[in-house]
Amino acid sequence: MGTEHTVRSFDEEIARLRGLIAEMGGLAELSAQEAVHALIHRNLELADAVVMRDKKLDALEAEVDRLAVRVIALRAPMADDLREVVAALKIAGMLERIGDYAKNIAKRVERIEVSKAFEPLTLLPAMAEVATDMVHDVMTAYAARDAALALDVIERDAKVDAFYNSIFRNLVSHMIENPSTISSAAQLLFITRNLERIGDHATNVAEMVHFAALGTYPVEE
Amino acid sequence: MGTEHTVRSFDEEIARLRGLIAEMGGLAELSAQEAVHALIHRNLELADAVVMRDKKLDALEAEVDRLAVRVIALRAPMADDLREVVAALKIAGMLERIGDYAKNIAKRVERIEVSKAFEPLTLLPAMAEVATDMVHDVMTAYAARDAALALDVIERDAKVDAFYNSIFRNLVSHMIENPSTISSAAQLLFITRNLERIGDHATNVAEMVHFAALGTYPVEE
Repeated sequence: MGTEHTVRSFDEEIARLRGLIAEMGGLAELSAQEAVHALIHRNLELADAVVMRDKKLDALEAEVDRLAVRVIALRAPMADDLREVVAALKIAGMLERIGDYAKNIAKRVERIEVSKAFEPLTLLPAMAEVATDMVHDVMTAYAARDAALALDVIERDAKVDAFYNSIFRNLVSHMIENPSTISSAAQLLFITRNLERIGDHATNVAEMVHFAALGTYPVEE
Repeated sequence: MGTEHTVRSFDEEIARLRGLIAEMGGLAELSAQEAVHALIHRNLELADAVVMRDKKLDALEAEVDRLAVRVIALRAPMADDLREVVAALKIAGMLERIGDYAKNIAKRVERIEVSKAFEPLTLLPAMAEVATDMVHDVMTAYAARDAALALDVIERDAKVDAFYNSIFRNLVSHMIENPSTISSAAQLLFITRNLERIGDHATNVAEMVHFAALGTYPVEE
């Protein structure tokens, strides 16, 4: 009857879709980590590598879109399967944006002229670690369909926001006291904001993971 | 046979989907305009109205998502129709983000303490006009399935980027010369960046309009 073949093929396509999403998540996390590493260690070569990697993320998102549309068109999935495909479409867009924010951080590295001792730089790696851990863990939650881990990721976003507010105040004080660093500090304002947005998008992915796993969005507090 | 009823219903659902997108586009454009108006005229009440409107945009996006999923699940649309539904899903996300940027601008209004004569403020309305016109025209392109107008919108993004670079430089110079305005100027840096992102997202919508109309993305230059 060919039914078995059709079923296996559908599962294969879903597995391929999930594999592409996992690949995107891994690259987005790596880019965010490397962008901040390049900033702290003034490594322009690494910053360039992050900028180049963004094209790969764009290509993967386009592949997810094409495959998702094909699965929907040819298979007309119902209920859970459809939710899975719609979640893949949305998560791909969110991961591509996390890559965008990492690229934006990397592009600013060469515009910054401050020493490693520049105080706000000492807080950024800690903020980056919380944000990139959120990206890492939300991909684990996605792979394991773990709604509890997704909720845990969502809760951690408050920590990223607190870092953002603290570094923002620190940078503005620093600018007032050291006008010669204003241009670099302005770049750091944007970098801090980009990290804060990476946390936001990891949160958005977590909400979609929750939706894909349980069919409901987490209740807003 | 019920076929005619099914066909009419499907068209009705697509029309409803397009209507929701048009409503989102109108609200997003209005929010962007009003946020900048509130900034220039220090109108905190208007800024609050923009912040509140964001919930409406979130609700509309959720409605688009639900309806799109239902259309796909129940109708299993093919080719052009499927492209239309997928474009609606993606465009809803982009418009919701334009609303987010407008909300972010509005939230910063009360944190800014400068006079109307503050020089960078004189450039912002011109930048905002280009960006909000892009939002307006891309929605016209969407309604009319006008790929040529979508391309025109995409081309205008360079103008928004030029404004961004010019205002950024202007703000940094201003901070160096007037340390007492640094905190407000830092807020304006973010506001300028938000307008630049609104232009980016109008461009993203334009690419999806092109895709929905012709089945291909505009060629990258």
